[in-house]
Parts: sequence; structure tokens; C-alpha cells
Amino acid sequence: MAEALRLGLAGLGTVGGSLVRILERHGNDLAVRCGRPIDLAAVSARDRRKDRGIDLSRYRWVASPEALAVDPAIDVFVELIGGANDVAARSVRAALNSGKHVVTANKALLAAEGHALAQLAEAKGVSLNFEAAAAGGIPIVKTLRESLAGNTILRVYGILNGTCNYILTRMEREGLSFDACLREAQRLGYAEADPSFDVEGFDSAHKLAILTSIAFGTVIDAESIYVEGIGSLEPADIEAADELGYRIKLLGVASRTETGIEQRVHPAMVPKSSAIARIEGVTNAVAVEGDFVGQIVLSGPGAGGAATASAVIADIADIARGDVIGTYGRPATALEPYRQAAMRAHEGGYYVRLSVYDRPGAFAAIAKRMAEQQISLESIVQRRRAPRTTAPENPQPQEPQPVILITYATTEAAMKEALAAILADGHIAHAPQMIRIENLN
Amino acid sequence: MAEALRLGLAGLGTVGGSLVRILERHGNDLAVRCGRPIDLAAVSARDRRKDRGIDLSRYRWVASPEALAVDPAIDVFVELIGGANDVAARSVRAALNSGKHVVTANKALLAAEGHALAQLAEAKGVSLNFEAAAAGGIPIVKTLRESLAGNTILRVYGILNGTCNYILTRMEREGLSFDACLREAQRLGYAEADPSFDVEGFDSAHKLAILTSIAFGTVIDAESIYVEGIGSLEPADIEAADELGYRIKLLGVASRTETGIEQRVHPAMVPKSSAIARIEGVTNAVAVEGDFVGQIVLSGPGAGGAATASAVIADIADIARGDVIGTYGRPATALEPYRQAAMRAHEGGYYVRLSVYDRPGAFAAIAKRMAEQQISLESIVQRRRAPRTTAPENPQPQEPQPVILITYATTEAAMKEALAAILADGHIAHAPQMIRIENLN
Repeated sequence: MAEALRLGLAGLGTVGGSLVRILERHGNDLAVRCGRPIDLAAVSARDRRKDRGIDLSRYRWVASPEALAVDPAIDVFVELIGGANDVAARSVRAALNSGKHVVTANKALLAAEGHALAQLAEAKGVSLNFEAAAAGGIPIVKTLRESLAGNTILRVYGILNGTCNYILTRMEREGLSFDACLREAQRLGYAEADPSFDVEGFDSAHKLAILTSIAFGTVIDAESIYVEGIGSLEPADIEAADELGYRIKLLGVASRTETGIEQRVHPAMVPKSSAIARIEGVTNAVAVEGDFVGQIVLSGPGAGGAATASAVIADIADIARGDVIGTYGRPATALEPYRQAAMRAHEGGYYVRLSVYDRPGAFAAIAKRMAEQQISLESIVQRRRAPRTTAPENPQPQEPQPVILITYATTEAAMKEALAAILADGHIAHAPQMIRIENLN
Repeated sequence: MAEALRLGLAGLGTVGGSLVRILERHGNDLAVRCGRPIDLAAVSARDRRKDRGIDLSRYRWVASPEALAVDPAIDVFVELIGGANDVAARSVRAALNSGKHVVTANKALLAAEGHALAQLAEAKGVSLNFEAAAAGGIPIVKTLRESLAGNTILRVYGILNGTCNYILTRMEREGLSFDACLREAQRLGYAEADPSFDVEGFDSAHKLAILTSIAFGTVIDAESIYVEGIGSLEPADIEAADELGYRIKLLGVASRTETGIEQRVHPAMVPKSSAIARIEGVTNAVAVEGDFVGQIVLSGPGAGGAATASAVIADIADIARGDVIGTYGRPATALEPYRQAAMRAHEGGYYVRLSVYDRPGAFAAIAKRMAEQQISLESIVQRRRAPRTTAPENPQPQEPQPVILITYATTEAAMKEALAAILADGHIAHAPQMIRIENLN
């Protein structure tokens, strides 16, 4: 059997700990699969004495990730420190520079420096693998990099954040507010104490940026993603979606358009019959549309130590077998520059919920503003109107009434113009709620 | 750039034709991805003059697949002839013997000879790739061989036949009979003129045998799979399933049990809330449960020329990159013998539908037979009882009434004994309908 592949593991949190467990439990099988043993040669983490429930005395301890990264006795630097902090970035760069393969689950690092790191890895002839960074245990990176190599990808989209999907599932099932469901998620450990990175959509955006680069062969660009979170969703929106045949999901969507690549993260109304509508709780899912394969959907755990470590092992096994592949499925030098499609040019249907003052002409004014922007309405739903308490000839201030509009396909620019005009007209009590409708199978 | 990888393609049906189209449309991108061009060096099919809608004049024509298999000017033999016929088997063997990589979509061939072919391929140091043989365009082979390498697989199951899933979806939606839905499927091209291979479960069994071998590292054994088709399902079963919170799917299931590997293909009641219950129409899906990853589900097109060719290209791209992997994820010599768990030992809940003569003691006799086998009943549903037309003291032959029983977990052996005794007692009008309940997430 060939020489062992020697790993240096930096970071012993839940993912790092699970990785040690997999190597201990399945080491023999991995050696058979890869044709060579995989040895954990050294580890590094912040606190050596912390009880992690695993016996680390068998492994050589290295004081810092940066020192481990350039340790001559390792072949692969496994970075599970996480976060876009300096230590993770510096040690990954150091490992690549010293000719070591790198396996990382660090989406923030890839979103920020993915292209530069890929160029460095390829210049050094080593692998930069990151299956665990895009959707946890779901093998979407390998699927895009390898399994769909014979396709032009038309669109990739998915539910990339379990915290948000858990909250939306609970809002839908229980009719509770966003705040109540967020607190529940925090209590159950599905949401962080500071949940903003998840619920504001940035975690999904980092993952989407990685998927976009592989799917479309473009230089990674997380900065230009249009991002909207789920905090403004109200039970009234969830309920209206249900009645109209939709569910609301926080989607990351990347698609090819005539003017460039559209990348966006926002709550979307998805048809109940679509595969993605049926993904519930903390589960993640990614759908890919290719010109030959049609649509495939992968779902599973997008987070969690054990599932994420399973993806890290797959990356290590590829290196052990000697399979070196371009970081984004192609050499970094062959990536096209990212050409951003303007969000203003986005086309689709829209859901709009307005709180309209119940007075003559209000509705006509709204309809006129839509018409001015050439927006056609597919449906108008006005519900729960309280009975009039005064005669029409003697109008009094009244509770505004909810009105829901569903538009046919229009542009983001037209929609924004129309809603700004409607707000300025003064017939509505609050800023309009607007949710994009996504046509999915 | 490195030398071109030269393909010899045998079989120019819908899959072969799509493969030629992919190579023509995406050849440049594939060369960038793989670091070398992929050339279609020669083709072979039964009828040279048949119009396939593609220009074959650019490609060298070889008279027979067997001759193409040993052609010195090819590196990879792509077998898309299909079927367990002699030509496909002989030419694949010849290609491997002459040291060529083989890519095939031929599930029947792999089910019959997979182990011998894998040993031959590995002895020659070449790849035997077959992503397209297990679930069409769904990358389940790569996922099991590579992405889940760090897991012990506990269970793999799925909807592996689009024809059956289409028929079951239509029966459920329209309340039609199996025969009516089969005729519709035939009219739409979703079922063959002779549909028996699909609807009797044998196509699913071939695919399951391949998945089992990769998932559990055992020698492939399609012969010992327990197989039951969907032809005996009646609208009454579909309707009862719906009322009880289930859907009926033709599942292929392979799982590790204490006595060996259980492999079975049969209609199963699956909870409506499970991922697999939501797969509709001709779509296929495979779920895998691993000890670290938990459950992941892949769904997509299980058939069709373009989707299948997409999977064939992925296999070719792996070879072009130089990634040679054990046929079943491990060297064929490392596979364990297949140890079959007896179907009699299968444990699970059961749905039973009986046509019971409406007479005193009938029900007590049925309950006694169940009790004799230690089978506990979770629920009993007796419906649509016609009003009595005679007084109880003057019994007359009556229409038998449907009675539905749901059992708690028991064994297949106990269930079969109980049902045989119930039939022998003479209180039921027809042989009992029995459908296994599958506990899925």
C-alpha cells in the first residue's frame, strides 16, 4: 500500500471533533477506498485542555495554525477554524505557499479570497477543496465540479441556511411571528445568540457565491450579491402565500441572463408543487438546472458537526486518491470575469401587500401607478374588511385594510418605481411589503 | 495541453445521440475542465443509415461493437448498446481485456456480471464507470463512491423507476385503476409496449443491486433481491394510504441488518411527511443514510437520453482527469461476500386489506390469527358498510366488506403465517392485500 497521507488539523470545534471521530472509526475503510492510509499527523486549536469528548493525546499538538500550516510532516492542511478571521486566512495562505493541499469548510474565507487562493493553489499544483463550505453534508460542490461537467448550468438555487428555513417552517405551521420563531430557534440551538448573519441572508450569500463560481465558471464575487433577509416577513405574508398556492423560502438564486450573472438572496414565493417548497425545518437543498440533465435536487443537512465532517473527509479522500481538480471545476486562470446583471433588470412576478386606507379613489390611484409602469396584475385579494361604521358621505379615519396584489412578470426597476409612487400618494399606511415570485419546478 | 482522450462509442440510440451532442456543444469547456481534449474517435451501431438527427459523417464508423472495443485508436469504450445481450457483454469484456477504460449505462449487464467485470477492470488498471446505470442523470454513484466515503451506510432506498412512479402518481391523483394509468403511460411514452420489466420491479432491482454493492461494499447480487411489482395495487389501497397518512411508492430498499444485507423491491407505504413521498411523476430519487452525514436525498431524471448522457460524460471526464477509483468505491478484491438477510426475517409494520364476509365471528377469527402470531394492531378501519338488508337472526350471503388493518412492527414470517391462516379460515373473499410500511424521514 502507498504511503500515508498526513493531515494537519486546525480547529477542534464540533466539525473538527467529528473529523477525528470519523478517522478513528472509519480509518481502515478509508485506507481501502483510497489505496493508502490517512493519518492525522498533528492538530492545533486555541485551548489544549478543553474537554472535547475525544482523546487527543494520540496526536501531536502544534501551538498555532500558522505553524501547523507549514509543518514539514503534513501533506494536507485541514482548516476548520472558521470565520473570515486573520488566523484562518493567514494559515491557509501559508499552507498553500508551502505546497500543501488545503481542505476547508470556511465559506467566509472563500467568499472573500476564493479566487486568489485558487490561483495560488493551482500555481503550486495542490488542491483547494471545500465541499463542506457550500451546503454542509450535501455533496453539491462535487456534483457541480464533476457530475455536471457535461452541462451548461442555467440556474442554481436553493435553501442554503437551516436557521432561516426552520423559522419560516415554524411561522407557516404555527402562525407565529418572526420574533417568536427566532426565539424558539435560539432556545433549540438552531440560531445563534446574534442571529443577524443568518437571518439577514449573509450566510446564504457566502454559500451562493461559491456555488455561482463553480456553476458558471466565473470569478467568485460575494460583494455584489443582492441580499435581503427574512426579518420583515409577517404572518400575513405566510398566510397569503398559502392561500395563493405558494410557500415563502429564503432562496439563494444564481442564473445566467442576457446581461450577466444574476446573484440574489431574498425571501421568495415558490410554488407549493416545487421540489424546493417541500424542504422543511433545518434541512438545506440545492437545485441545479443544466442544459442536458434538466433539474436535479440535492437535500440534506446543511450544518452540524458530523455532517460537515463527512464532507471534509470526502475532500481528503479525493486528495488521497490523487484526484486534483481545478478549484472551481476549471483552472482558476480559465474563469471568466464575473459580469453582474443589475438587480434593477431582474424579471419576474411580484407579490405586494399594502395597507390601504379605505377611502374613495385609493384603489384607483394604486392601479394607476401600476399601469404607469406597464405592470399587469394577475390577481388582487382584498380580505377581512371590517364593516363600515360610518356612512360613505361622512368619511372618518379608518383602519387601513390589507390588499394583496400578484403581478405578471415585470422588472425590478418598474416595481420599485410603482411602489415608490404608491407610497408617495399617501393612500397606504406603511411601506409596501414586496416579495419576489420564483418560477420553479 | 495533454493528449486527447479518445472515445469509441457503441450504440447510437437516444443516449448515444445525446452524448454526441454534448461532445459537440460542450467539447471546449470539457477540455478546459479536464486539462485535455475529449475526442470521439469512432462509433458503431446496428444501422449506419438510420437518421438520428446528428451528422455522423465526421466520425469513423466501425462495423461491430466487438471490433470497436479492441480498436487500437481508442482509450475508452463507451457502451450504450444496453440490455444483457451478448454483444454488450462480449464487447465490454473485450475492451477491458485489451486495457481500455469502459463507461457503460448498462444496468442489466452490471447486475449480472458486475463483480467479474470489476475484477477484470482492476486487474488491467482501468476504470469501469457506470454513473448512468443506477439512476440516470442523478449522480448517486459518485455520491456513494466518493462523497460519502467517510460514512458507514445504514440504508439506501429510493424510487428507481419513473414508469412506476408515474403510474402511482396518476392513480393517486385521478383515482384510476392501474390498468388505465399504465395505458396512459404507454400513450405518453413513459411505459414500454411490454411494460413487465418496469412494472414488475425488475428494472428497480437491477439498479438497487448496483447501489447496494457500492453502499455496503459487498459483491453485487441481483438474483437474491426480493421483488414485487405494482400490478396488484388497487385504487382502494391508494385511497386507504391517503387516509392513513401514507403514500404508496415502489421502493428499492437495501439495509444492513444483524443477519446480513436486506435487499427488496416492493410497493411500500411511506409517510406523507417523508422526502421520498413527495417525489412525483417520472422523477427518480435516492435517499442515503450514513452514520455521520445523516440522510441526504438526491432527485432528478432517472431516464431520458439527455440526462443519461450527462451522467456518461461525468464518467468520461473522471477518466480524462486520471481519476481511477475502485469500481464499487473499493477494490473489487476488498468487497465482502454478499450475505443475504432472509426476507422472512424482515421487520416492519404492515398494511393489510381484507374483503371480509359480514358474518358473526369473522372478525374475531381474524383477530385471533393475528394474536397467534403475536402481531399487535395499531389500527383497524372498516368502512363503506352497506346497510343490512336482512335481520341478523336470518343471515344471507352478503357482499364482503373491506377491512383495513395496520400492524405494529412484526416479522414477514409472522405476517405470512397469519394471512395464510386467515385465508384458510374462509371468512375472506379474496387473497389478502398486504403492503409493507416503511419508516422514513
